Amino acid sequence: MAPPLELWFDFASTYSYLAVMRVEDAARAAGLEVAWRPFLLGPLFTEQLGIRDSPFNAFPVRGRYMWRDLERLCARYGLPWRRPSVFPRSSVRAARIALVADAEGWAAPFARAAAGANFAEDREVGDPEVLAAIVAALGHDPARVLAAAEEPGTKALLRARTDEARALGMFGAPDFVVAGELFFGHDRMEDAIAWARAAAEPGSGAARP
Amino acid sequence: MAPPLELWFDFASTYSYLAVMRVEDAARAAGLEVAWRPFLLGPLFTEQLGIRDSPFNAFPVRGRYMWRDLERLCARYGLPWRRPSVFPRSSVRAARIALVADAEGWAAPFARAAAGANFAEDREVGDPEVLAAIVAALGHDPARVLAAAEEPGTKALLRARTDEARALGMFGAPDFVVAGELFFGHDRMEDAIAWARAAAEPGSGAARP
Repeated sequence: MAPPLELWFDFASTYSYLAVMRVEDAARAAGLEVAWRPFLLGPLFTEQLGIRDSPFNAFPVRGRYMWRDLERLCARYGLPWRRPSVFPRSSVRAARIALVADAEGWAAPFARAAAGANFAEDREVGDPEVLAAIVAALGHDPARVLAAAEEPGTKALLRARTDEARALGMFGAPDFVVAGELFFGHDRMEDAIAWARAAAEPGSGAARP
Repeated sequence: MAPPLELWFDFASTYSYLAVMRVEDAARAAGLEVAWRPFLLGPLFTEQLGIRDSPFNAFPVRGRYMWRDLERLCARYGLPWRRPSVFPRSSVRAARIALVADAEGWAAPFARAAAGANFAEDREVGDPEVLAAIVAALGHDPARVLAAAEEPGTKALLRARTDEARALGMFGAPDFVVAGELFFGHDRMEDAIAWARAAAEPGSGAARP
């Protein structure tokens, strides 16, 4: 039995958009389950870099490259892309809703819709009304879901996930975790999948050193 | 005629090691020429991040991940790897020798030997004696080559390359440049190759957006 492919992501993160959109198909093709792990990058950036903004804004030369890279990567993978007019957008409400959705089994379509709202449709994904519309379009009661997202237990779970991200050694997003092994970046998705397959089939010759 | 695949690298850079070791085979398989572009990352890190060390030392959480990532990647690609006991090592002398070697047509074997000395053999690649031994092992006169490397023209060329790296928008290494298009990181080598192929064969359906 292969371990799940944990996707750790932040709805404000551009490269997380790629992983959110691609992970289910890739995992399914490899016979793996995806475990959805929304967390907040902001506290880690503040602790590690002393900044209260995206590193792509704080370090403009990196930002210029990132926007071009995203455009190229979305073209390569056939994903819709529109550079958002506001960056980064607040991701805390969407992350909490993702936790509620995950408990109810609809994290994947919610994550795709919310990430797409931000990075393909340039919608204000931090706005409760935008989030309510996304939830409703997925067939769920937005009043109930948004209330559950703001419950103390949901807030505490998101803080716990962010603490776990820190403990796992994260410093950006997306990340993949397989049986405790950390893979940083959308670029490592295939390696993380190979790692999970190798864990399931010892001696298969996959990438495990 | 496809444009050359420019590899921009720093001998102090761990991920540059991967690119230096892999680029010739990958380019040859795609029918591309490699243009070797040693430069110095240090001035860019100082300007952009305000640090006088590797970001992997300045930001330890990134360093911890990088060392593990390198170990995994070298296993995946069948490359020798030994974590160097000193990091980063000075790369300025090796970079100047690479410029001399490039003018004489032996940049590729020199780059592989010097990068391997640092990251596979844990040798002090900043030391002129180590560099002299590498040059001699490649069949060249170390006294002549090391003297040429310290000529004012060689030093000026390395400064010019670093200026060009800055102008191209670089913030790390390795990088690939194809007809002015920047690809950051060893992870983008295949994308850069596809870009060069697409430039040579319009309408081939490769990654160009």
